[in-house]
Amino acid sequence: MSEVETRKTQSSLQDQLAQIHDLLERQRQAEELLRRHGGEHTQRAENLMQRQNRAELQKCLDGLHPADIAYILEALPLDERLIIWQRVKADRDGDILLEVSDAVRETLIADMDQGEILAAVEPLDADELADLLEDLPPEVLPELMASLDAQQREQVQAALSYGEDQVGALMDFEMVTIREDVTLEVVLRYLRRFRELPEQTDKLFVLNQDNVLTGVLPLKWLLVNSPDKAVGAVMARDVDTFQPTDDADDAAQAFERYDLISAPVVDAEGRLIGRLTIDVMVDRIREESESEALGRAGLRQEEDIFSSVWASVRNRWAWLAINLCTAFLASRVIGLFQGSIEKLVVLATLMPIVASIGGSSGNQTIIKIVRAIATDQVGTSAIWRLWRKELGVAFFNGLIWGGVIGVVVALMYHDIPLGAVMTVAMVLEQMLAALMGVGIPMLMLRLGRDPAMGSNIFLVFMTDSGGFFIFLGLASLVLFHH
Amino acid sequence: MSEVETRKTQSSLQDQLAQIHDLLERQRQAEELLRRHGGEHTQRAENLMQRQNRAELQKCLDGLHPADIAYILEALPLDERLIIWQRVKADRDGDILLEVSDAVRETLIADMDQGEILAAVEPLDADELADLLEDLPPEVLPELMASLDAQQREQVQAALSYGEDQVGALMDFEMVTIREDVTLEVVLRYLRRFRELPEQTDKLFVLNQDNVLTGVLPLKWLLVNSPDKAVGAVMARDVDTFQPTDDADDAAQAFERYDLISAPVVDAEGRLIGRLTIDVMVDRIREESESEALGRAGLRQEEDIFSSVWASVRNRWAWLAINLCTAFLASRVIGLFQGSIEKLVVLATLMPIVASIGGSSGNQTIIKIVRAIATDQVGTSAIWRLWRKELGVAFFNGLIWGGVIGVVVALMYHDIPLGAVMTVAMVLEQMLAALMGVGIPMLMLRLGRDPAMGSNIFLVFMTDSGGFFIFLGLASLVLFHH
Repeated sequence: MSEVETRKTQSSLQDQLAQIHDLLERQRQAEELLRRHGGEHTQRAENLMQRQNRAELQKCLDGLHPADIAYILEALPLDERLIIWQRVKADRDGDILLEVSDAVRETLIADMDQGEILAAVEPLDADELADLLEDLPPEVLPELMASLDAQQREQVQAALSYGEDQVGALMDFEMVTIREDVTLEVVLRYLRRFRELPEQTDKLFVLNQDNVLTGVLPLKWLLVNSPDKAVGAVMARDVDTFQPTDDADDAAQAFERYDLISAPVVDAEGRLIGRLTIDVMVDRIREESESEALGRAGLRQEEDIFSSVWASVRNRWAWLAINLCTAFLASRVIGLFQGSIEKLVVLATLMPIVASIGGSSGNQTIIKIVRAIATDQVGTSAIWRLWRKELGVAFFNGLIWGGVIGVVVALMYHDIPLGAVMTVAMVLEQMLAALMGVGIPMLMLRLGRDPAMGSNIFLVFMTDSGGFFIFLGLASLVLFHH
Repeated sequence: MSEVETRKTQSSLQDQLAQIHDLLERQRQAEELLRRHGGEHTQRAENLMQRQNRAELQKCLDGLHPADIAYILEALPLDERLIIWQRVKADRDGDILLEVSDAVRETLIADMDQGEILAAVEPLDADELADLLEDLPPEVLPELMASLDAQQREQVQAALSYGEDQVGALMDFEMVTIREDVTLEVVLRYLRRFRELPEQTDKLFVLNQDNVLTGVLPLKWLLVNSPDKAVGAVMARDVDTFQPTDDADDAAQAFERYDLISAPVVDAEGRLIGRLTIDVMVDRIREESESEALGRAGLRQEEDIFSSVWASVRNRWAWLAINLCTAFLASRVIGLFQGSIEKLVVLATLMPIVASIGGSSGNQTIIKIVRAIATDQVGTSAIWRLWRKELGVAFFNGLIWGGVIGVVVALMYHDIPLGAVMTVAMVLEQMLAALMGVGIPMLMLRLGRDPAMGSNIFLVFMTDSGGFFIFLGLASLVLFHH
């Protein structure tokens, strides 16, 4: 009955975190003291203090919502995290495991023995269990599956049979169903037999005798209509349904667009098999945007901020390796023009300016295009328009900023041709960046890949090598061969 | 009654968009034909065709949810967008204006005359009106405010009195309130007098005679409890409330963390003044992550993808200007070592590798830290740990990839000292990037600024200048002065 648990505002949660930190610190000090002066008298006094500390900590934890405990666990370094985790009442372990991030969940599960894990996950619903299953040690699975009843086992298997990005993996099974030929009065009486309705219940699902969904009855409509009307006369027949194989992000967009709270999931024959709820969709929206941000920076996955150095090195490994290759190739482009640089070493000081501005503005373009692709707002007819527009923007930006830097360079080095080369190179580099900023994500889309991931590494490669090539090539042509 | 409007899956919405594109294309061709062969006979035939086209388009639009029309309007270039906008039934204009992005809203409102605007916004609720108000031309405001009743005017003014980032600007005023001394039976009968309950109603607010909130009654609890119980005996007294001055993002996090659907907003004395709902919070979460992504790329605001070249130039202007300055400063650092580059021109080809890898790994660090800051998970005691860890990661990454590139360089140029300089420079540059990746966002936080915005431009400046300085400085010391 989470409805009555005390919730915390962000700032009071911060205070709580500080308090727990404090209690842990005091406890550590007490232990330290105990170790140093081992006398019996002090030992007793310290023990008393420790017990007080512990009691205070326990009181603090017992009053917290599982989501808040999850938050606190994530904010604590591993050693303190595990102290707190051991103090949490066992019956809430499952809920907390569901709330923490994958990286932190691993550290918590690693600290539990088989019996604790089984006790923690047993109270969970089938869909929640399915979410946790892949993180559990394989040796607990047989016993765990044996503890489920036939329906639960079937539900867990159903949830596991869908990919992470499919609606089937996100649905739960807590549907309240009714028949359309009864009156609202009967429905009201039926509901009173429940001790509680499932969380996020804003509508009842209306089924016929074949379990086919024929409509939904929003609770709001149940409440405002006369009790002697039949369900069939009141319900909405035209319902948003999802199929378990639908794309989860599309479903999340539908929830967002149509302000849904819950929606039925049906199979190909229209039979009800589960439901989606807004809370799961909100988590999905958040995760999607986070993984996009992380992916753009080349992080493979969310990191526990207190993970080991080694885990972090592995997480960032691949990106840096790719980056090293592209940077190396870009440096080979510079190598082509060593002769020119030898003749005029100032070229070496100016070339990074061209490459850097190209990278920035290409990145601005890419972010806009990826966003438009994500919402499917870029049709093929729109691409040409977009391309034309981005090239226009690039031309003006190149002219303005290239002009500024060109004048500065011409004045600094008393070399007007060099300034002119700088300006022209900036314009060309800007236009290259615009071409690539639209072209790379569109190409990745065409190749069936997610344009949010890795687009920018190709972009930086193109704008770096291209920028060096354009600037040094132009300089060689204009300054030394005329 | 949006509950019964047909909703579209993402793919069927795509089809719809393609169909509308098609109809607009055919219409354009028809007009073209008409202009070329102006004969009376063809004119009549063309007119007929056009009329059919138009009817089809109208049918297509009338079946769509306002959110879907908004989606289609955003995906169309300006000329086609306005054709569709004129065809949309006037009574839905207001809802659609609420759904479209700010940039697109401007283009739509610019196309409406005063009467159309007034007709569009009049059916809206006070909170919705307040959202639109800043985008409306100032000359319609007096007439608009005059058309509101006293309560609405007060609500609009209340909503406008809060900052964009405060709960007060996001709340609505559609609360259903009850007293705690009545029975559930009375509540049920009271609700039947409503024609409809407000969207997103999952709980009723319980007030005393001073309008102070004393509890909430979730509809679920109303339904499962016996009708002769009193509201006071069933309701939850310990309620999540928000104050209108609370931070909107904190409220969104609370909705996410506690799976809320609606929550009361109360003033300092506990009097109910509005409510927050999950749909608004979801929009907020989405906008927050989008503006973070845009801000990171230096875009001031969301752009209409079909906006004019000029509007885009202005939007990207400031960022490129700052970038030009930092790139220029970095190039001055290279200028310090022109002598060394003249002696060994290969230094110019290698220096961008060091700077580029430093930028990438610094960016990985910054993204992690900004994320941890956004969820308030980094306390002061954690910073030192984080710093130590990131330095460790940087050291290993520098050693590994610096080692690889060092060996490659030593082999390529038959110059072992040069390879060694490369390796050491990479390690130092990685550690500089880690220091800056943690330090810059923390500093921005200390200065009261949003670390998500602009952190990376300082980072790139530091890793570029620093990388050039470290590599060229080391090379000068080791290669020429021993």
